[in-house]
Amino acid sequence: MYQISELQQLLDQGINNYPYPSSPRNLYEPVSYLLGLGGKRLRPALVLLAADLFEGDVEKAIKPAMAIEFFHNFSLMHDDIMDKAPLRRGKPTVHARWNDETAILSGDIMLIEAYKLITHVDAEILPQVIHVFNKVATEVCEGQQMDMNFEKESSVSISDYIEMIKLKTAVLLGGSLQIGAIIAGSTTINQQLINEFGTKLGIAFQLQDDILDVYGDPEKFGKQVGGDIISNKKTFLLIKSLELAKDHLKLELERLLIDQKIAAEEKVSRVTAIYNALNIKEIAHKKMMDYANDALECLDKINVADDRKLILKDFATHLIMRDK
Amino acid sequence: MYQISELQQLLDQGINNYPYPSSPRNLYEPVSYLLGLGGKRLRPALVLLAADLFEGDVEKAIKPAMAIEFFHNFSLMHDDIMDKAPLRRGKPTVHARWNDETAILSGDIMLIEAYKLITHVDAEILPQVIHVFNKVATEVCEGQQMDMNFEKESSVSISDYIEMIKLKTAVLLGGSLQIGAIIAGSTTINQQLINEFGTKLGIAFQLQDDILDVYGDPEKFGKQVGGDIISNKKTFLLIKSLELAKDHLKLELERLLIDQKIAAEEKVSRVTAIYNALNIKEIAHKKMMDYANDALECLDKINVADDRKLILKDFATHLIMRDK
Repeated sequence: MYQISELQQLLDQGINNYPYPSSPRNLYEPVSYLLGLGGKRLRPALVLLAADLFEGDVEKAIKPAMAIEFFHNFSLMHDDIMDKAPLRRGKPTVHARWNDETAILSGDIMLIEAYKLITHVDAEILPQVIHVFNKVATEVCEGQQMDMNFEKESSVSISDYIEMIKLKTAVLLGGSLQIGAIIAGSTTINQQLINEFGTKLGIAFQLQDDILDVYGDPEKFGKQVGGDIISNKKTFLLIKSLELAKDHLKLELERLLIDQKIAAEEKVSRVTAIYNALNIKEIAHKKMMDYANDALECLDKINVADDRKLILKDFATHLIMRDK
Repeated sequence: MYQISELQQLLDQGINNYPYPSSPRNLYEPVSYLLGLGGKRLRPALVLLAADLFEGDVEKAIKPAMAIEFFHNFSLMHDDIMDKAPLRRGKPTVHARWNDETAILSGDIMLIEAYKLITHVDAEILPQVIHVFNKVATEVCEGQQMDMNFEKESSVSISDYIEMIKLKTAVLLGGSLQIGAIIAGSTTINQQLINEFGTKLGIAFQLQDDILDVYGDPEKFGKQVGGDIISNKKTFLLIKSLELAKDHLKLELERLLIDQKIAAEEKVSRVTAIYNALNIKEIAHKKMMDYANDALECLDKINVADDRKLILKDFATHLIMRDK
């Protein structure tokens, strides 16, 4: 079996040597720029890991895996316009470096390139693979819409929030694994189990992200701790706190959310104090571990020798134990 | 065989009864809004016409035809943001009625819906159909990028212009016909011929559009005559005039292009006078007829009884003889 680092190297090779058309240059340049910023290539690695788990031909899964990475970066390019984000992986976003028009059209071509890449599978499994890819693509857009809607809604429930992160983030992990499983010719039940493993793990991954944004070690985390608090982002921590806080804590939290004058640092420290008083970190951690354990249970049920599952188990453990 | 009006009715039914997911409502509402503005459904009708020409099952071609209409409207939704267009078919564009973010994300989901619809073909032809669809989708984006690039370029050649309108507009007509032909199980050579027929016809169609923008009857044309002149759009007429004009005509044309103060009406009338002096309408008409005749020659070569071709011949004649 392959190690993850070997798979990531295969993916980097494929992505770095991607044969972009030479013209129109300014259509394809932003695509290669964004993909060239790197990243951990987690999602496409999942396609290859699943193909390998079910003893498929990993080489055959590389182009579909690249499709996943192109799709993920398409969604980042467009989301960054919508979120007016200046930076991505520490570098200017495409719309900031070029302009909105460029980021719209280069994002579009990136989505179309993803569809080109995903068709590089044997004809007999193409309908299945495209079906999974279409479903995931739809859900990611729906999740992004929900996320944008939440910004304007006065109250969001935990179940709506979980549904949103499931769609926006988690289903792509599940779908990536399922596509790898289809390519390897695994059974339908194994495909479903590995999809569910990825989806639950994806939810845990996002919850851990929420926790790290507040409780991460600033030196390891690599971005501003408390960024979500400063922007009033409706994360699991904030939604749960609004649900649990009573009396003066609730009043203070609500006041902090509408205070336009408060210094960022003070806001972070006072909201964090409320989170601490409510034990939010532990509650969020428990929720995260519930999803992680559900994920691992799905992995257990997959009908494959246990030693083949070790890499995915390690991968999952690494994702939820990460501190950055 | 079906009449075009019958096919358009089938398409309207399919599009008007499209089962959008109920949520997130604000993701799908702009999609149904834009598609609901109507239009002639020319491109999807071509899928059905080609399926019918080759004695295929037209019912089987309806969803792929709808894919073409969804794709076309996706490109309109995103192009309208990039062009900052306030109106589409006389109604506010999606980004004007909602906002840019909505038009980006609803456009994305529309492209993904197009991919869902295009997969509704028999599994054995799916790879071919997706291949044609991917190629066309790529070319349409490349054409849009070229068109945007032309705005900033000081000089554009006729051959670059023809290449741009081919990509931005014509290949979608050709690809629509080819997809219909594939669904009907026609031969590869017939597929290529009908694609070429559509592509050449598409170029003629756009050249006729350029002519009508200046020489159309204001009462029939439905939009402001001379709009392209006012915005200095590099159409066939302007590019050819810049190529042919000499001495004082060239100087005057160049001066009119940079004159910020001139009244719109006067600009239109003076540029039109230069076009007239250069015989541009006739030159453009001849070019248009060359492409139309090339198109009809391709149609002639298709290995199908001549009487089956009458509807497409009429369709072509109607497109190039139209005055609106």
